[in-house]
Amino acid sequence: MSSPWDKARRPAPAAVATEADTGGDEQRLYGINAIRALFARRPQALRKLYLSEARVPELREILKWCATHRVGYRVVEEDDLRRLAASSHHEGVVADVLRAPMPRLDAWLPALPPGPCCVLWLDGVGNPHNLGAILRSAANFGVAGVIVPAHASLQVSGAAARVAEGGAERVPLVRADGGSDPFAALRAAGFTPVATLVHGGDDVFADPLPARVVYVMGAEQAGMDRGLAASCDRRISIPGTGAVESLNVATATGVLLAEWFRQHRASR
Amino acid sequence: MSSPWDKARRPAPAAVATEADTGGDEQRLYGINAIRALFARRPQALRKLYLSEARVPELREILKWCATHRVGYRVVEEDDLRRLAASSHHEGVVADVLRAPMPRLDAWLPALPPGPCCVLWLDGVGNPHNLGAILRSAANFGVAGVIVPAHASLQVSGAAARVAEGGAERVPLVRADGGSDPFAALRAAGFTPVATLVHGGDDVFADPLPARVVYVMGAEQAGMDRGLAASCDRRISIPGTGAVESLNVATATGVLLAEWFRQHRASR
Repeated sequence: MSSPWDKARRPAPAAVATEADTGGDEQRLYGINAIRALFARRPQALRKLYLSEARVPELREILKWCATHRVGYRVVEEDDLRRLAASSHHEGVVADVLRAPMPRLDAWLPALPPGPCCVLWLDGVGNPHNLGAILRSAANFGVAGVIVPAHASLQVSGAAARVAEGGAERVPLVRADGGSDPFAALRAAGFTPVATLVHGGDDVFADPLPARVVYVMGAEQAGMDRGLAASCDRRISIPGTGAVESLNVATATGVLLAEWFRQHRASR
Repeated sequence: MSSPWDKARRPAPAAVATEADTGGDEQRLYGINAIRALFARRPQALRKLYLSEARVPELREILKWCATHRVGYRVVEEDDLRRLAASSHHEGVVADVLRAPMPRLDAWLPALPPGPCCVLWLDGVGNPHNLGAILRSAANFGVAGVIVPAHASLQVSGAAARVAEGGAERVPLVRADGGSDPFAALRAAGFTPVATLVHGGDDVFADPLPARVVYVMGAEQAGMDRGLAASCDRRISIPGTGAVESLNVATATGVLLAEWFRQHRASR
């Protein structure tokens, strides 16, 4: 197979400037579903592709696109893929891509359709496997976006994107504006901020959930900031036997999203 | 602090024989909640304990018990803990313990109380983080046990027990007898075997779930064996947008358990 690798070039300066405006420095992705989803949604973000010989047949469409658009690709050995991904979970394909643009809350909110809508507020999820599983569940249950507070440094790593199985491309991260009150903006758009507590909130199964909801999730270890929880309109918890202290944060998020979906998908 | 370490001895032959009857060879556990739960439920299974200086105050009760019962413990360095656990996630405490006894299905079933009861059937979950998260959710939602089919080699590793946060001690693994039909035995005890499929099953939210249910879970990659799914009384799936192929197996299990709990805990 002829490879346009040698013809691949750094983008011209003008292109770099444009990309910087829309958010994207480069990052390394791996995992077959992560890269398929990237290609399906924003092929122009693809900068370089590395794949195993075994993946060539099923990635033929992407390789053809690369050749047409002068994006370099290279068939490499297992060891190279492991080194490039810094992980044994590369699944035979690694890519350098531009990060997805991260819209700002005030620009993103007015573009949402009316009616039932579920949004996540993610303060800090340190473990990439948890973040990936959350994004996978978010995509499955139709979450419109994940809001990242102004102070937070949350980003989707290659590991998280692999675990998200394509979900990272379907659910945008949205930056809460540091200058204005994001909860006020969300309320003005019809959303109810709901704090999700490990203990002490109202039983999530007891009362109907808002059709337009922002689930405010706490960090894995620290849990939710008390001030943040107090500033929400409702505080809910997942009930249980008490035999363990809590659910895993990704499982808890899945349960909460499923319950909202159960109640509101008929009217979506 | 005086340590009875040097006094710790191998169990006498008679004790070994007894332990073998109830299932237990030794395994290595780590993680604070895993070891707390072990101590709360079956302290006699503790064989050796290693901990960091920092954990001494909060583990004083366990150390006292060790001293009384001539179980060796030792305060060691971070590096030793990492080596003993073969993981950096030791959380300051590592222990050698006897494996929990694994009851056989035909002996275990008649001992279950009447009324609503949820059981998992776990064919193969290879990833210890998934297995641990499943056991954590199972404990949270009051699952009575996890049935392991006769041919399966499923065991709870130290990594899985750590991720289960104590849940591995609350939910017994139960061995399905190779000689008889386990589904027939379960049906005779009032249970409905329900296959959980990634796609193509009835919407789990559409119809009431059986009060006595066995959720039959497939393996992570291979999914559920078609023959096994066909032999179940119902086949269900978690609905979604289709934006990703499926949920993570631990998240899916959490969603299914939560839905059963939502419907049936009032009558438990």
